[in-house]
Amino acid sequence: MLTDNSRPIGIFDSGLGGLTVFKEIRQLLRYENLIYFGDTARVPYGNKSKETILRYSKEITKFLLKQNVKLIVVACNTVSSLALDELKKEFDIPIFGVIEPGARCAYKKLIERSRSKNNIITNKKTICEDTAYLSGIETIAIIGTSATIGSKAYSDAINRLNNYKNGANINIKIIEKACPLLVPLVEEGLVDSDITRDVIKYYLQPVIESNPLSIVLGCTHYPMLKEIILDFADDNTEIIDSGKEVAIEIKNFLISNKMLNSKTAKTYEKYYVSDDPEKFKLLGSNFIGSNITEHIEVVIDFL
Amino acid sequence: MLTDNSRPIGIFDSGLGGLTVFKEIRQLLRYENLIYFGDTARVPYGNKSKETILRYSKEITKFLLKQNVKLIVVACNTVSSLALDELKKEFDIPIFGVIEPGARCAYKKLIERSRSKNNIITNKKTICEDTAYLSGIETIAIIGTSATIGSKAYSDAINRLNNYKNGANINIKIIEKACPLLVPLVEEGLVDSDITRDVIKYYLQPVIESNPLSIVLGCTHYPMLKEIILDFADDNTEIIDSGKEVAIEIKNFLISNKMLNSKTAKTYEKYYVSDDPEKFKLLGSNFIGSNITEHIEVVIDFL
Repeated sequence: MLTDNSRPIGIFDSGLGGLTVFKEIRQLLRYENLIYFGDTARVPYGNKSKETILRYSKEITKFLLKQNVKLIVVACNTVSSLALDELKKEFDIPIFGVIEPGARCAYKKLIERSRSKNNIITNKKTICEDTAYLSGIETIAIIGTSATIGSKAYSDAINRLNNYKNGANINIKIIEKACPLLVPLVEEGLVDSDITRDVIKYYLQPVIESNPLSIVLGCTHYPMLKEIILDFADDNTEIIDSGKEVAIEIKNFLISNKMLNSKTAKTYEKYYVSDDPEKFKLLGSNFIGSNITEHIEVVIDFL
Repeated sequence: MLTDNSRPIGIFDSGLGGLTVFKEIRQLLRYENLIYFGDTARVPYGNKSKETILRYSKEITKFLLKQNVKLIVVACNTVSSLALDELKKEFDIPIFGVIEPGARCAYKKLIERSRSKNNIITNKKTICEDTAYLSGIETIAIIGTSATIGSKAYSDAINRLNNYKNGANINIKIIEKACPLLVPLVEEGLVDSDITRDVIKYYLQPVIESNPLSIVLGCTHYPMLKEIILDFADDNTEIIDSGKEVAIEIKNFLISNKMLNSKTAKTYEKYYVSDDPEKFKLLGSNFIGSNITEHIEVVIDFL
């Protein structure tokens, strides 16, 4: 490769939430240099139109390119849903979103589960009482912001996988549920509270009743609520974190393309925001699981 | 006056909320032409920094001036708290915020109540059990977004009034409480729900325990929750809606300055947003109490 592998990976999000993705990438790729951009002046994106989200994300991509990144991760589910294809078309750099990896993981689990169910039935020669099984329907639930859910990006991605691999012959029911209050609850610091439990119950009750095999956390804030969602979900339901999945995918990509940074290099992390670096530093630590000690630069040129 | 009184009143807000102020102005000044701008692309302002809010509100003010408005109402409590003085300095047009009218009303009620209490005591020659009264402390509570509360704009305005009129000799305790979840709850359409009641209880319990004479609704979304707040508050507590108060103030200003529009003129209402006019039309009707039938224009020039 002619490229310089020490160039950083650029990760961006509408605000703080993408730090849960940053955290996963940092954990899995600890020799990589990382740049994070949080559009804290214009957060949240989840209730904005496609046009506006596209305009904002193009501005940020251009900014990251100026920082000489080797790869861009769109950590924001909303941008990944609504703008990823356009960004890939317009910019000549590998760009990864969080939807495909999340969808791929959900689909993989579903195939595994379906196979193991079939094995149990075959081995034990019993008739399963589960009507969902009898009718051959498997359920995946997606939760996210209004914009992500409205885009149907996760459904489309899962259906594409199912059509592509339709030898598996799985009849999939996809439940998509917008949960717009979860981000403000996390940002209010109410992660472990009865109000949050009630709100999660309010959103998830109809989802849980469908007994889904997995619930995909289609918003970067939701990993913060994973424990409560697990408490509330059925024991058999798996929770899928798209951030974790994209980190794995990037690692594989860097390995395949011989783009991994040298293990002997001294690495750095840089943070840029469009507003309020102090608040970002303070709240960001919760998302990232450790203190942010670096200087946080404010970028307003394109805002 | 040399000015053309048919020129519209310009009202702006970070998004939809200011429509509760628009509604009050429309009700009280039904011969006025009105222009509303909602910055729906960059909403909410309540958790942004002063610098960003100032930059955004200057852009919007310039836009409204281009529409030849005769007066500007900053319907947003956050902008009124953080940027009003700068806007007044920079632009040569009457600009009204919602803080001063709300604070003035709260202070007036407090003086009235204090006087009536004194009369009761004097007449009945009894000793009041109320320790707050004995110590001469009267309480006003303010609820709003993090930015509005953080600015202490309401406290400062009330304290200024008290110092100015300190013949009244009132010892005021001001409780300020940021309630960041209330806007998302209203926007989620959960006005009449147990979750909203629980969230209001969570925020207001410590406020109510101080037995305030009044609670000032320091956010344009909160009039939508007035009934629930009233249910929860003590019978003696008055709820003050800053939007209602600014409408009265503007009417008085227009009368004093002979700037009222002719009662025979045909009036219009115009709506501008920075994103998603359809959503604005749909949700805006709840705030304004009637359907928005006008075309809603999208302005992105300065965004």
